[in-house]
Amino acid sequence: MTDNRKPVFLVIGAGAGIGGHAALRFAAGGYHAVLARRSDGAGLARLVGQIEAAGGSASGTLLNAAEDGAIEELVSRTERDVGPIRCALYNLGAQIGNRSLDQTPHRIFELGWRLATFGVFRLAHALFPAMVERAKTGAHGTLLVTSATAAMRGNSGQHSHAAAMGGRRMLCQTLNAEFAPQGVHVVHVVVDGAVDAPDTLGKLLGDRYETFKANKGPDGIIDPAALAETYWHLAHQPRNCWSHEIDVRPWTDVAWWNDNPDPQIDARGKGFAGPKN
Amino acid sequence: MTDNRKPVFLVIGAGAGIGGHAALRFAAGGYHAVLARRSDGAGLARLVGQIEAAGGSASGTLLNAAEDGAIEELVSRTERDVGPIRCALYNLGAQIGNRSLDQTPHRIFELGWRLATFGVFRLAHALFPAMVERAKTGAHGTLLVTSATAAMRGNSGQHSHAAAMGGRRMLCQTLNAEFAPQGVHVVHVVVDGAVDAPDTLGKLLGDRYETFKANKGPDGIIDPAALAETYWHLAHQPRNCWSHEIDVRPWTDVAWWNDNPDPQIDARGKGFAGPKN
Amino acid sequence: MTDNRKPVFLVIGAGAGIGGHAALRFAAGGYHAVLARRSDGAGLARLVGQIEAAGGSASGTLLNAAEDGAIEELVSRTERDVGPIRCALYNLGAQIGNRSLDQTPHRIFELGWRLATFGVFRLAHALFPAMVERAKTGAHGTLLVTSATAAMRGNSGQHSHAAAMGGRRMLCQTLNAEFAPQGVHVVHVVVDGAVDAPDTLGKLLGDRYETFKANKGPDGIIDPAALAETYWHLAHQPRNCWSHEIDVRPWTDVAWWNDNPDPQIDARGKGFAGPKN
Amino acid sequence: MTDNRKPVFLVIGAGAGIGGHAALRFAAGGYHAVLARRSDGAGLARLVGQIEAAGGSASGTLLNAAEDGAIEELVSRTERDVGPIRCALYNLGAQIGNRSLDQTPHRIFELGWRLATFGVFRLAHALFPAMVERAKTGAHGTLLVTSATAAMRGNSGQHSHAAAMGGRRMLCQTLNAEFAPQGVHVVHVVVDGAVDAPDTLGKLLGDRYETFKANKGPDGIIDPAALAETYWHLAHQPRNCWSHEIDVRPWTDVAWWNDNPDPQIDARGKGFAGPKN
Repeated sequence: MTDNRKPVFLVIGAGAGIGGHAALRFAAGGYHAVLARRSDGAGLARLVGQIEAAGGSASGTLLNAAEDGAIEELVSRTERDVGPIRCALYNLGAQIGNRSLDQTPHRIFELGWRLATFGVFRLAHALFPAMVERAKTGAHGTLLVTSATAAMRGNSGQHSHAAAMGGRRMLCQTLNAEFAPQGVHVVHVVVDGAVDAPDTLGKLLGDRYETFKANKGPDGIIDPAALAETYWHLAHQPRNCWSHEIDVRPWTDVAWWNDNPDPQIDARGKGFAGPKN
Repeated sequence: MTDNRKPVFLVIGAGAGIGGHAALRFAAGGYHAVLARRSDGAGLARLVGQIEAAGGSASGTLLNAAEDGAIEELVSRTERDVGPIRCALYNLGAQIGNRSLDQTPHRIFELGWRLATFGVFRLAHALFPAMVERAKTGAHGTLLVTSATAAMRGNSGQHSHAAAMGGRRMLCQTLNAEFAPQGVHVVHVVVDGAVDAPDTLGKLLGDRYETFKANKGPDGIIDPAALAETYWHLAHQPRNCWSHEIDVRPWTDVAWWNDNPDPQIDARGKGFAGPKN
Repeated sequence: MTDNRKPVFLVIGAGAGIGGHAALRFAAGGYHAVLARRSDGAGLARLVGQIEAAGGSASGTLLNAAEDGAIEELVSRTERDVGPIRCALYNLGAQIGNRSLDQTPHRIFELGWRLATFGVFRLAHALFPAMVERAKTGAHGTLLVTSATAAMRGNSGQHSHAAAMGGRRMLCQTLNAEFAPQGVHVVHVVVDGAVDAPDTLGKLLGDRYETFKANKGPDGIIDPAALAETYWHLAHQPRNCWSHEIDVRPWTDVAWWNDNPDPQIDARGKGFAGPKN
Repeated sequence: MTDNRKPVFLVIGAGAGIGGHAALRFAAGGYHAVLARRSDGAGLARLVGQIEAAGGSASGTLLNAAEDGAIEELVSRTERDVGPIRCALYNLGAQIGNRSLDQTPHRIFELGWRLATFGVFRLAHALFPAMVERAKTGAHGTLLVTSATAAMRGNSGQHSHAAAMGGRRMLCQTLNAEFAPQGVHVVHVVVDGAVDAPDTLGKLLGDRYETFKANKGPDGIIDPAALAETYWHLAHQPRNCWSHEIDVRPWTDVAWWNDNPDPQIDARGKGFAGPKN
């Protein structure tokens, strides 16, 4: 029995930044976009409206991803009522800014894990059996995971965020090891730079947001529409050529593995660790 | 006011393998060893007895590390009643063997995190303030964390274990970023090979344990006493020369980043991914 | 003074696999493709002919990249006589199969470096000044570097290849650190799987090539045309969202960081390295 | 036929920093130390004299490691005239400070490779056959390789150094993959901080050296004697528990994977790359 409905692009964490732009891009490419976010029904309706105004197909729902059963229910409801989820984007993080250990209470650390690690596990658990079935008939499934520098290295003040994201990265590798040969493709996208996202970065910085962007210079902050193109590309790589991990950052940003450029590099002593002593 | 009591070496996860041997080594070096493990009071008493028979000082306690407040209470009780914790070893993992995603229920995934990631966070949260205070007067503190290959890469069947260990590794890096300059040294030890541990590996393999060891050949499995020497070395590096991460494996083992040696390497196609095409 | 000539896509290492397909893709997108390879002028002419037959613009040249001045001369000749090199693909490797240390003579080790590391350095040295100039007026340049698993980890028998590729990877990171903020984008592409390339893999395997491909199963080997699409995407990311590294492999392949699936995993002892002992 | 001579500790790159202190430590532990360095025969004699004054056994030789046959000749001469090389330390680097690409001529890039990558290959090529033979009778061999942050990531200005060190790291992994199971242990030591080395760092900084050290604060620079203890430990790990890689840095240093601490972290935008947008 063929499913004649449009393939679904499901976004968990659909704000006005990466999530919303990815939904717009996939809807433009023929998917029905299902946008889920925790709050701001008005903002959600606005995003759905923008997609439809552009000729795309979309619907939205509020979702508390940390709640027991919520992700699972969303997946089964979508598969039943909307269409087969061909691609999902897990776009929730657990960024709380930099906090010292004593300013990171147990419940914050746990919430970070719940949103950033456990949520990916729960989504895969709920979604992959159907994706595996469909892959048998040739339609592979994709899980895109927006991740962060904190998945690659711990850094000062990132106790909760780095632990959650590091778990996420290892989980993505484990999921690929089991599911890639079954036709489900997981991509761990390391977003190593600021994204122009009014709902998150904008709120975090408040009044300073415009100054921040101006200071970064031209194209100095990731345009979520540009990142959405990369998401689209990754989700449509033929199965003979799948990427499991990719990084992105603005041209003017220092990659996470680099020192900040520093005219006083000599004075600080980096660069002098060389072996011949 | 000087604390004239012996420095304490606290082991969380003190079985007859790494934990017990580390306790023995640190007690031989002048520490009072506090051994905590979840169950088997008789086995615990036997370990304490062995240390005392060797002329060392030790005490033991049963501990459910996953229980709210248990680690915190152990730390404060030890600091108050036994002595200043100069070095702690977090030696709990969440190894459950290889399980496919559908055989990994939510509660197992959560328990993995609770033991392998959250426990390290809770121990640091409870212990580091006192270590930072003591470091101001010259006695730096050390947290040794026994970790696993799963912290470095996800692998088939390791959904729970890799997610938990990957979080642990990023947490250790974050802890070092904040606390190394305050005199607390965290070492993430990647145990990339089987350890001769009757309480865990022995129980897991049961009857097959002796065959397993025989198949590995001479020195083909890590002797926990050898690893304990490396732990001792790491805990006593002067603060001008601290290691944050180290790996260990038996000489005959394939490192995690290597292929298993395979006479049919040509037939499988690895080694032919080269660029000039 | 505006340069009205077509932008050039320069491929060093243009065989019938990745190099040729990338040239075809970029020519289809409006570039003039310059194909350089060491030998087989007839094969080169055939590739140029295929591109032209598809409506694209291309030219070819034989090049011994290891020869002093050869890359430098090709760059300056191309810039002067053909057009501005907007994107270059360094597609030479140094794959010689697996050889033990005693079967790896000094000159082979040096040749590996000369082709796989030094060649990238020389190309960047010759090409980037012009790219930097053009980037000031808005046209950023791209250097795509086809790389291999050996850039990520050493492996048995890979003395020459891994040393050369590991150097290449660190060089790419250094180039990005200096040149990304000047508008030149370097992408290190880790090809972690066999590529359907008659000129290299095909020749290496000879009679076994068809069997090899059949054994890999459907879509079990990278189609260079698919990889060329990813190259095209990477070369056209807007400068606010640049990737520095990406990996690719067929769906059925084991990623380099994974064990080969092994039914006897218990017997080998991997997966039992866990901490609680 | 038993070799009754003392085991030899061979240092290539024996200046007054890491190399000299390692020689002192191994001589104190019962080895005969052979110190090789490029120039300054008087400094070399002084080091040998210090070791002898401390009751150890040592000899010295001038060596141009980049010269064809020089390393090979040193190995065979030492094995024949002095004793079996049980442990070797390759302590030559290719640090030339930070230089932009256009300030890095071809010959400098090649010299970096020749000293930092090719030299390790040549030493292994010359030395490992004898080590493998001796390992059959129980005396495993060790090759310690002093390496640098540049082996882990490229950084601005490190074109030559990072390419050479990245090649070195992959070579060490390849050597271990082939030789660890034959009883030869290779350790790649990532020295991620400045070392108190008058011959190299001291000369590089000149008048600023004392100010530099003072600015680093107490224990803010690696004491080569401390690092020598870690070398000693690594060389004597029993073969059931070998480390392949370890990092070291002073307590107050930022690890290479971390940002420099920055009070204006918000203004720079790092830490805001999080996924929920």
